[in-house]
Amino acid sequence: MSQESNSAPATAKGLEGVIALETAICDIDGVKGTLIYGGYDIQDLAKNCTFEEVTYLLWNGVLPDAIQLAHLHRSLTAERILPPMVKEILEMTPEDADPMAVLRTGVSALALFDGEADDASTEANYRKAVRLTAQIPTILAHFDRRRNGLDPVPPLTDSSISHNFLTMLHGKEPGDAAEKTFDACLVLHAEHGLNASTFAGRVIGATLSDMYSAITGAIGGLKGPLHGGANIEVMKMLAQIDQEGADPKAWVLNKLQNKERIMGFGHRVYKTLDPRAAILQEMLAKLSSERGNTKWYDMSMVISETVLKEKGLHANVDFFSASVYGTLEIPSDLFTPIFGMSRISGWTAHLMEQWHDNRLIRPRAAYIGPRGLKTGR
Amino acid sequence: MSQESNSAPATAKGLEGVIALETAICDIDGVKGTLIYGGYDIQDLAKNCTFEEVTYLLWNGVLPDAIQLAHLHRSLTAERILPPMVKEILEMTPEDADPMAVLRTGVSALALFDGEADDASTEANYRKAVRLTAQIPTILAHFDRRRNGLDPVPPLTDSSISHNFLTMLHGKEPGDAAEKTFDACLVLHAEHGLNASTFAGRVIGATLSDMYSAITGAIGGLKGPLHGGANIEVMKMLAQIDQEGADPKAWVLNKLQNKERIMGFGHRVYKTLDPRAAILQEMLAKLSSERGNTKWYDMSMVISETVLKEKGLHANVDFFSASVYGTLEIPSDLFTPIFGMSRISGWTAHLMEQWHDNRLIRPRAAYIGPRGLKTGR
Repeated sequence: MSQESNSAPATAKGLEGVIALETAICDIDGVKGTLIYGGYDIQDLAKNCTFEEVTYLLWNGVLPDAIQLAHLHRSLTAERILPPMVKEILEMTPEDADPMAVLRTGVSALALFDGEADDASTEANYRKAVRLTAQIPTILAHFDRRRNGLDPVPPLTDSSISHNFLTMLHGKEPGDAAEKTFDACLVLHAEHGLNASTFAGRVIGATLSDMYSAITGAIGGLKGPLHGGANIEVMKMLAQIDQEGADPKAWVLNKLQNKERIMGFGHRVYKTLDPRAAILQEMLAKLSSERGNTKWYDMSMVISETVLKEKGLHANVDFFSASVYGTLEIPSDLFTPIFGMSRISGWTAHLMEQWHDNRLIRPRAAYIGPRGLKTGR
Repeated sequence: MSQESNSAPATAKGLEGVIALETAICDIDGVKGTLIYGGYDIQDLAKNCTFEEVTYLLWNGVLPDAIQLAHLHRSLTAERILPPMVKEILEMTPEDADPMAVLRTGVSALALFDGEADDASTEANYRKAVRLTAQIPTILAHFDRRRNGLDPVPPLTDSSISHNFLTMLHGKEPGDAAEKTFDACLVLHAEHGLNASTFAGRVIGATLSDMYSAITGAIGGLKGPLHGGANIEVMKMLAQIDQEGADPKAWVLNKLQNKERIMGFGHRVYKTLDPRAAILQEMLAKLSSERGNTKWYDMSMVISETVLKEKGLHANVDFFSASVYGTLEIPSDLFTPIFGMSRISGWTAHLMEQWHDNRLIRPRAAYIGPRGLKTGR
């Protein structure tokens, strides 16, 4: 047990409980069930602020005034168009490719056409954060249109990220409740402390590598089923109940009787309520009514009430976001990429914080292998 | 200070001194100046084993017998050709792109054409490790030929990674000393414990994301100047002395007098000798003689002797690898990509070890921002 030093501290497997750094971006209190971004409660933000305002908050530590918000809005809308060669890469991508692998490759390729990619100044990094936030929705919508044999819809030059993305994806403007609910989903997923993708991004950024490298790595981390994929599993369950034409309550009770796990309940961090779930539940009701499709809403309500009654477990954000995206007719393999399209604001905020007072992030490993072997040659 | 728990351990900034996991791949003793891969001393391996043998050792924990080595060799040579669309991406890449950004994008794109990309079985991961090790040299050589207006050289179907890469890069076969020295460079850079790029890869892999995602992130980490770029700085120094036509000894003494740092001396981990440096110094002598170009060797010897005498600091592996690559006429912006072409063996070994007994890697952050703010809307 030498590994770079003579001291031998205990191994903190998975770094559980170890505090790696200080942050002013976000705090989670799992016991109280609260989540704050830059001092503001997530419920306040999701009800009263747009994703653009929240993005500004995460990047700057304060909410924008009207002029600052208008300026950010102009920068974001001006940067939505992809470089021609990144479009070309999307055109060449096989239609059955995993959208997260497409996003990872597209973001990595954006760097090749950004003259500021390796400019480490604070100003250039802020501009790159704007560009990434603006371009990720275009990458996703372009790929989804193409794989469905449809022409990509050019980005709108004057509308919110939510409105623009839904329009590019579906080729028609979303309704008010759709735009507002999807915007709230972006707010709710924008940031969540030092999760594995954000941590991966900060480890990469701490080598003084560039923002594209760090975000490419973060996307790779989010792709993992232990991280970004929970609402896909929820949607699979809902779709299965729907296809079987089963009674949702009976279906859930049967699963529970067989000691099987119901996806979307409880949370590793939140011991009581996931504060994001209640907001989405409320919005899902309005959205379903606007869309004239209450199938997923009705099913979700029955399932969440049954699991709460039987197991005392509350539905989490993933449980309701599945129904929201399902009601918005978004394909389930875009759920995690959309998570990334939102989390880009938190990832880039963490990188800018990291670089403000950088330090290499590098724990040690304890060697448990053989010693003293010789090739004998 | 709540962040997911009520306890409040001390912050371990940069995770310095924290043991994150156990490994049987590599051990470094910075005080004694020793480095072992799987129990074997690095000097024994660099003198007596090929990069292919060392790669097998890192992946399997034992050196291969003749049959196992022949099998690995066949797999590696069979996988060298790039999917047509990855070639197409390289053709479209601007010639002034950073080769590390090109490598990151190329590796990410390889996943789009690998039907096993999301197959998490041990066997599929081993095959992906083989593919990545085989294809990275082709990506680098293809891009370098193209940016120089030259036709790419198709990969050889029966030669070592070292011989094949130098042939693809230069369009002619390397001499014996060139092949052997470059092969030793690959061995010396293949693995180095839980450095920042390897750690980033393991953090990504620990979400159960795929090998391409983890390696793409690791490449992004290696790209950082605090990690992979030291020998480029050494080469800049050598080239500057050469261009100025300065006397190397006088140049170094002048720098030291002005309290300026000489690149390539001392090491964060190795407190005495970097065990990799001595091997390279010896090989550089032979290589320079074979190439009939002792310019970088002569300069390196004068500088290393001067710094040792004046400051008591030994030259490290980066110091001599710069002269080796310079003597091999490799452009300096390929030094870090070549580091990655070697480290791919260690990165993939760490991923396979991680997945053998996986656990999410997720430390905590301490919140130091404001609380209790309200939007007032």
